[in-house]
Amino acid sequence: MKLSRISDSTVRRLSSYCRVLEELDREGRRMVSSKRLAERGGVSSAQVRKDLSYFGSFGRRGLGYNVPRLLEEIRSIMGLNRTWRCALVGAGHIGSALFSYHDFRRRGFDVVAIFDNAEAVVGQKWEDCEIQNVKKLVPEIRRLGVDIGIVATPARAAQEVADLMVEAGVSGILNFAPRKLEVPKEISLRNVNMTIELESLSFALRASETRSRKKRAVSVDE
Amino acid sequence: MKLSRISDSTVRRLSSYCRVLEELDREGRRMVSSKRLAERGGVSSAQVRKDLSYFGSFGRRGLGYNVPRLLEEIRSIMGLNRTWRCALVGAGHIGSALFSYHDFRRRGFDVVAIFDNAEAVVGQKWEDCEIQNVKKLVPEIRRLGVDIGIVATPARAAQEVADLMVEAGVSGILNFAPRKLEVPKEISLRNVNMTIELESLSFALRASETRSRKKRAVSVDE
Repeated sequence: MKLSRISDSTVRRLSSYCRVLEELDREGRRMVSSKRLAERGGVSSAQVRKDLSYFGSFGRRGLGYNVPRLLEEIRSIMGLNRTWRCALVGAGHIGSALFSYHDFRRRGFDVVAIFDNAEAVVGQKWEDCEIQNVKKLVPEIRRLGVDIGIVATPARAAQEVADLMVEAGVSGILNFAPRKLEVPKEISLRNVNMTIELESLSFALRASETRSRKKRAVSVDE
Repeated sequence: MKLSRISDSTVRRLSSYCRVLEELDREGRRMVSSKRLAERGGVSSAQVRKDLSYFGSFGRRGLGYNVPRLLEEIRSIMGLNRTWRCALVGAGHIGSALFSYHDFRRRGFDVVAIFDNAEAVVGQKWEDCEIQNVKKLVPEIRRLGVDIGIVATPARAAQEVADLMVEAGVSGILNFAPRKLEVPKEISLRNVNMTIELESLSFALRASETRSRKKRAVSVDE
């Protein structure tokens, strides 16, 4: 099975099966049927069987899947059984929340360097990690062999920071800044953007309120 | 202009123009050209002009757009000049980070109720807001006239909580739980899912490493 043939939506479902399997594992369950995995993951059991069949046959008819073994296999496929070296740029609110986010580290994302451009924070320490001037970004990322650059800067600085990360040779970028980044196609880019989701939700609610008001106005006119 | 005709991608770009305009406003700039707005927003200036033309003509040829006025107009279109009443379900790490996230409140998202199912946290206070038992969710959301339900529970509880929110009459749901939610089509649903983005990034990096290794193996064989 070529990993590159697996679609992004399959990868996202595998990620959600991981969540379900971790929960089952904590509950001490040894086996799980595709039906139960499907119910908990919010998909059909045919979809579960199809997704898992990509990776060979884990399940046994009538018995289902072995929980710890399937979890181990999916983690290995997803690259979650190893550590990724991350450099965080932007020591503000989002950067700090991320740095102290337990799940982030538990999943193997290890922040080995932090950068900022504000004199006030450069030199401060977060646990054992000293915040460095962003001017040192390229040589430091090279020296430390960083895999993933994390952009947690204001929108206006995000593209410039991403360009420096690419120059320094990261393989992937995780962008928390509320703007679209341009990166070469061999760089994997993922975006987590709460502000845009919030504002798009706000817009959708306002649009639906406007519709309801119009409907009411029409009823009154009739 | 019918709000419902505006595409989701336009809304997302408007959200990013908001970011740029807020920055310009803080810098004390009164006017901005579509070119500059485009550069900072990471799109073409033709795109900016097209997006803004939906809402009537804000710009003046040769002078550009008035920054505070355009910001005010976009905020009004997006429903960001008002307050949305939010109920947060899940008083764990994500819920707590969100509750204390300054930007969330500044954009008019006001958490008026918090729910959890753990005896240990029910009754605790976050600022002035007491954490209530999730069993009270439906009557409390109705009583308080909540607009938006925020799902910050573990994956396994997320659908059940969303169903209760819909029953209670919320207009929108913001989902932070790492699973896909099913809601009636009249409910606006937005997802913010860091774990899935992280794991999908991890997978992409692993897949590209596998490709590089294969390439190297082929080179050696030749």
